[in-house]
Amino acid sequence: MRLSVAALSILLSLPAAAPAVEVPANTSPQTRACIDCHAIHTPGIVHDWLRSRHAATTPQAALAKAPLERRISAPEVAGPLGETVVGCYECHSRLVEQHQDSFEHMGRRINVIVTPEDCASCHPTEAAQFAGSKKANAWGNLELNPLYSLLVETLTSVKEADGTKLRPLPASPEAKWDTCLGCHGTRVEVAGTKQVDTALGPLTVPNLTGWPNQGVGRLNPDGSRGSCASCHPRHAFSIEDARQPYTCSQCHLDPDVPAWNVYKESKHGNIYEAREAQWNYEAVPWRVGRDFQAPTCAACHNSLLVDDRGKTVAERSHDFGARLWVRLFGLIYSHPQPKQGATQDLRNAEGLPLPTSFTGEPAAGYLLGSDAQEGRRRLMERVCQGCHSASWTQGHFEKLAAANRETDRMVKAATALMQAAWEAGLADQKNPFDEAPEMLWVRQWLFYANSLRYASAMCGAPDYAAFKNGWWSLTETLAKLAEKVRTGTSGKVSASSGAPASEPGGP
Amino acid sequence: MRLSVAALSILLSLPAAAPAVEVPANTSPQTRACIDCHAIHTPGIVHDWLRSRHAATTPQAALAKAPLERRISAPEVAGPLGETVVGCYECHSRLVEQHQDSFEHMGRRINVIVTPEDCASCHPTEAAQFAGSKKANAWGNLELNPLYSLLVETLTSVKEADGTKLRPLPASPEAKWDTCLGCHGTRVEVAGTKQVDTALGPLTVPNLTGWPNQGVGRLNPDGSRGSCASCHPRHAFSIEDARQPYTCSQCHLDPDVPAWNVYKESKHGNIYEAREAQWNYEAVPWRVGRDFQAPTCAACHNSLLVDDRGKTVAERSHDFGARLWVRLFGLIYSHPQPKQGATQDLRNAEGLPLPTSFTGEPAAGYLLGSDAQEGRRRLMERVCQGCHSASWTQGHFEKLAAANRETDRMVKAATALMQAAWEAGLADQKNPFDEAPEMLWVRQWLFYANSLRYASAMCGAPDYAAFKNGWWSLTETLAKLAEKVRTGTSGKVSASSGAPASEPGGP
Amino acid sequence: MRLSVAALSILLSLPAAAPAVEVPANTSPQTRACIDCHAIHTPGIVHDWLRSRHAATTPQAALAKAPLERRISAPEVAGPLGETVVGCYECHSRLVEQHQDSFEHMGRRINVIVTPEDCASCHPTEAAQFAGSKKANAWGNLELNPLYSLLVETLTSVKEADGTKLRPLPASPEAKWDTCLGCHGTRVEVAGTKQVDTALGPLTVPNLTGWPNQGVGRLNPDGSRGSCASCHPRHAFSIEDARQPYTCSQCHLDPDVPAWNVYKESKHGNIYEAREAQWNYEAVPWRVGRDFQAPTCAACHNSLLVDDRGKTVAERSHDFGARLWVRLFGLIYSHPQPKQGATQDLRNAEGLPLPTSFTGEPAAGYLLGSDAQEGRRRLMERVCQGCHSASWTQGHFEKLAAANRETDRMVKAATALMQAAWEAGLADQKNPFDEAPEMLWVRQWLFYANSLRYASAMCGAPDYAAFKNGWWSLTETLAKLAEKVRTGTSGKVSASSGAPASEPGGP
Repeated sequence: MRLSVAALSILLSLPAAAPAVEVPANTSPQTRACIDCHAIHTPGIVHDWLRSRHAATTPQAALAKAPLERRISAPEVAGPLGETVVGCYECHSRLVEQHQDSFEHMGRRINVIVTPEDCASCHPTEAAQFAGSKKANAWGNLELNPLYSLLVETLTSVKEADGTKLRPLPASPEAKWDTCLGCHGTRVEVAGTKQVDTALGPLTVPNLTGWPNQGVGRLNPDGSRGSCASCHPRHAFSIEDARQPYTCSQCHLDPDVPAWNVYKESKHGNIYEAREAQWNYEAVPWRVGRDFQAPTCAACHNSLLVDDRGKTVAERSHDFGARLWVRLFGLIYSHPQPKQGATQDLRNAEGLPLPTSFTGEPAAGYLLGSDAQEGRRRLMERVCQGCHSASWTQGHFEKLAAANRETDRMVKAATALMQAAWEAGLADQKNPFDEAPEMLWVRQWLFYANSLRYASAMCGAPDYAAFKNGWWSLTETLAKLAEKVRTGTSGKVSASSGAPASEPGGP
Repeated sequence: MRLSVAALSILLSLPAAAPAVEVPANTSPQTRACIDCHAIHTPGIVHDWLRSRHAATTPQAALAKAPLERRISAPEVAGPLGETVVGCYECHSRLVEQHQDSFEHMGRRINVIVTPEDCASCHPTEAAQFAGSKKANAWGNLELNPLYSLLVETLTSVKEADGTKLRPLPASPEAKWDTCLGCHGTRVEVAGTKQVDTALGPLTVPNLTGWPNQGVGRLNPDGSRGSCASCHPRHAFSIEDARQPYTCSQCHLDPDVPAWNVYKESKHGNIYEAREAQWNYEAVPWRVGRDFQAPTCAACHNSLLVDDRGKTVAERSHDFGARLWVRLFGLIYSHPQPKQGATQDLRNAEGLPLPTSFTGEPAAGYLLGSDAQEGRRRLMERVCQGCHSASWTQGHFEKLAAANRETDRMVKAATALMQAAWEAGLADQKNPFDEAPEMLWVRQWLFYANSLRYASAMCGAPDYAAFKNGWWSLTETLAKLAEKVRTGTSGKVSASSGAPASEPGGP
Repeated sequence: MRLSVAALSILLSLPAAAPAVEVPANTSPQTRACIDCHAIHTPGIVHDWLRSRHAATTPQAALAKAPLERRISAPEVAGPLGETVVGCYECHSRLVEQHQDSFEHMGRRINVIVTPEDCASCHPTEAAQFAGSKKANAWGNLELNPLYSLLVETLTSVKEADGTKLRPLPASPEAKWDTCLGCHGTRVEVAGTKQVDTALGPLTVPNLTGWPNQGVGRLNPDGSRGSCASCHPRHAFSIEDARQPYTCSQCHLDPDVPAWNVYKESKHGNIYEAREAQWNYEAVPWRVGRDFQAPTCAACHNSLLVDDRGKTVAERSHDFGARLWVRLFGLIYSHPQPKQGATQDLRNAEGLPLPTSFTGEPAAGYLLGSDAQEGRRRLMERVCQGCHSASWTQGHFEKLAAANRETDRMVKAATALMQAAWEAGLADQKNPFDEAPEMLWVRQWLFYANSLRYASAMCGAPDYAAFKNGWWSLTETLAKLAEKVRTGTSGKVSASSGAPASEPGGP
């Protein structure tokens, strides 16, 4: 780090003259030094932290709680880290040797990015569960799957008009970063250093690619995957934020994964929105009925829930699919959940990296068997039965099974029409995503079949399932696709027969 | 009910050892018995009830309030029902002789479903008003109207591709239940019994069709219609939930009835969202200005409102159309509100079960006359004038009248084009909903004309009316329809000339 | 004003008998008289005011605050206006000579509409900043720009079907008022008087055109422009409402300006929604971190922000573009912000009233130069750096620049295809908005390119940018447009070669 002498003297003199904020008593000297300046220069994050549990508790105090009440999973946190509150320096100085993004800052080595590997110092169980999840693998599940990365490339490439032909240029890192990798995560690498202008003069810092980003499957410069801040936003890192559906809704919304949209339309969402200011998002463990009277996303999918006697209704898991047996997100059909979080190596009967074949058969070896599915279903049923009878729950899940069957048939009809289009030469199968009939086919499975399944699964979004993005759209899309095949108009998007090959990775 | 001996001993021993929750002093012994187990097995609903007004008040205490402050409309509630708080047993044991869904449970007869007829024990006025509303008749208004039930069938049937033809299969009960009947209500009937797995072992319970469902016009197994829980969700059954727009928004939203969408865009919605945590949703009667400063859905449409002197501004009504004179929800044109809640028997000049003819003339004998309309309009104007001048109100409703006239003309243009398509053989009139030109015509009246009318009526959603689902879409749809007719492409959806006949009913 | 004797006696007797509400001690006698009646007849607005800062403070008390804490910008407020709370009469009686909308009411002259010119008595700095903004000029920017007013006319005109031709009728004042002018503002003029029915009998009041309306660029009957109530809704006129995004969201939402939609999807919106009940929207100045931990619209765009030492991070401005350098709202391409708020006189290289030419060159003389742009960018960066590092901010804005470049190229491809359609006679260039290929072209820049730019600018709405209204739609629209040109189908909307000429103005 290089600072002008003038700037340095401002830095050193100002805080001494007037410390801008009070810090907790057991704040480490290093963190105090961070805050002396940052309270002035980035007051937003300093106050966010000051109001956080990290600023109010030391790891050793956290370890004194009863096991079910603990928010920390390390059996012990030894040394100074255990004895001070969890401040700037405690998190931004971990494992500096592994951090390509560490740099000299005010006489200390500081990591720009705090990663799940760093958080694992105190939260190893959560980090390990997360590491095995589809979420932590979200970058590779997209970018290392040749079929999905072709969809990304086709989607985000600038097209030039050459007469009535459209010529795709290679997709830019920025376009992927603004879109798919915004949620899936970018690959953050250190490309040397750069100088930035700051209030204190020029500062030399690591030059990071794909930064800023907090996608849930981000590739970090310490070699780890993911971003805890995706769901526990900085610098509060709170369970309260993560338990509210607004957090999940950033990525899980229409048109492709409309969990948030259908939740709002459901009775669960109705009750949540009407009473959200009255509930307790802080209690650990989370007491069904006492703390909340209708579930948020976290309640059904990953929180530790207990009943009135303190008995566990559901274990906490940071593998967010741990209570799911069927994967609604059809690629291209509904199917049993995959056995592992990293899905790029799945192969269907046709050898393609898809969980099902074009005719709908699951890639069985890679997916949960029926016993494992049944076990998962029982975990979720126990959550439902915190409020609902066994008969209610059974009726609900039978309805979901019907929705899966029927949407799969509506996708099969679209697939058959698209294959007819290929055979008739109306579109070129090489890139199955870039011509008009193909885009209708993508709409059918990615937008409409998914929407109907989510609406059915998440306890009711009848209008969504009817007219918004469900049966109406499934029916209309089939009609349009049939008409295209019948009348022989293609609407080919690209001048070439496929999009340019794109290297996985970047930004 | 059959329980294993082991399960029964758990049941009997556990609560005795450690009652999981405290219940109010004047809880009936029967309800105490319910809660002893259910606090452990369904703690969510037990706590929801414990926080409710039903758990805090006996009917006789409720009757002691001044008339305008009462939430109970029975002149008296005699016997034990009046003297205990309103708990599990009080509601789930009413009128068991009428309840096909009652079953033996722990030595008592319990009804699975609590219906408006049961609630009428204490709330007879509300039940009677509701029974006469379009809401209570929502199942029949859809399923017993041959034209609308054909639309439901066409919408929700799986289509198979046979070459480029699409062959509809009969729509499943589950598909209707996930969609239209999610809001309109299913027909819940008892089809024998079934055995379900519970935490206490297998349990024999009534096997209900179309269950779970809380659609507002549900056909109940006691012969009654509707579900109070649609708007007063279990097990709080609160006025606070019902007064918040999140409740209404479950069914009244885009694309067909976008009341919620346009409310959010209006100044009323803006003020509500900015201040919702500060208002009093509990006060009965509801004091304009003191308790809230901008209306929610309930304020305009059905709540009892008083002014600063306690004088009634608007009477409470559970017929939610009681302050409405014109029906915006065009089927297919705007028209005077129907005289009665059950609309399946309306006949237009062409003999079809529609409130207007294809050329827009109202089915006069079935609809409000101008005096009755004027009376309804004055009721609503009094609500508006709780905040707005007479001049403001007049200007607003004149603008709405223009929106109705103009959207009707935009629908007429679409109807003319569709008739041209029929005459040219581009589509088959037999099923007017299943071919591409017809689906554009449905969009015109069901999505876009309705949207513009709601946007105009509900005090402003300019962008919605302009670009979202209003004028832009009305104009573009006409252009597409004209083009289809001109170029002679049909996009016929079904291989047969009509959808298969569907029996009204089910699930 | 004419009231029947009976009504007058009610008016005079009732309040004397029982004043409905208590008013603050230093309320003027005139305002007391207003409230005596209006507490009964419009209790909603009376209570809204009673809870407001205007009811709790006199201008002279407001002037006693430290400069940064002041919500009033007049150096002094002399006479009775300074000494009483700011009530009905204080605002509705200002500058009556200029107010065409003033009328005799209960013995005093009352203005129906309170305008920015009236508010300037106490808030002159805010009024002056606002007067120079695009917002205050929103009516003229639309209605006095011949190209944009043609778009308005084309959009909002009823079309009649004449065979397969569509014949547009002149757009009605009401249709424009329900749509574009709902946000941009109507022209409110006094067209004599009219009699309205009130609870007190008939009342003669000014007959106002285009009323009610609170569009941000409304033309007022005192000759001023705008409505402060657009963002400070009546009758609280609070800073708390204006600082919450629900206020801005009324006009800034999808599909054309989806600021609200992308904010909700961003991490900023996530944090706001999860914690909105806990923040301080009242503090002046607004303290970054202490009062809020993630920005609302106002924080980034116009509020006075200070750091932990009370030092100004950003000055307050009621010119809402004051911190913006690039205009995302592409008409038809992104471009430097215009130098002045009134944009109808801009001319591009082709002489059209657009900020860029059809090939994308900015109308340089009318737009900010690079130094001025750089100055604006630095203002915004200081806001960002209240929480984020310089490196983070730099990375973010580089990504935005890429999104602008790439969306401009996607619009250029659409423009090239539309020009090909014109040359092939598939559409008529005279009205560039009314035929099917042209409507696709409008979608490309007005809906999709704008959406992608907003998603990139406002810190992340990845799904919106990918599948909702961004890259997917940009790509699909190009494909449809290319197909239309290739296959030679036009989908002409109007029978005539252009929409009927429309006079700017009205309602």
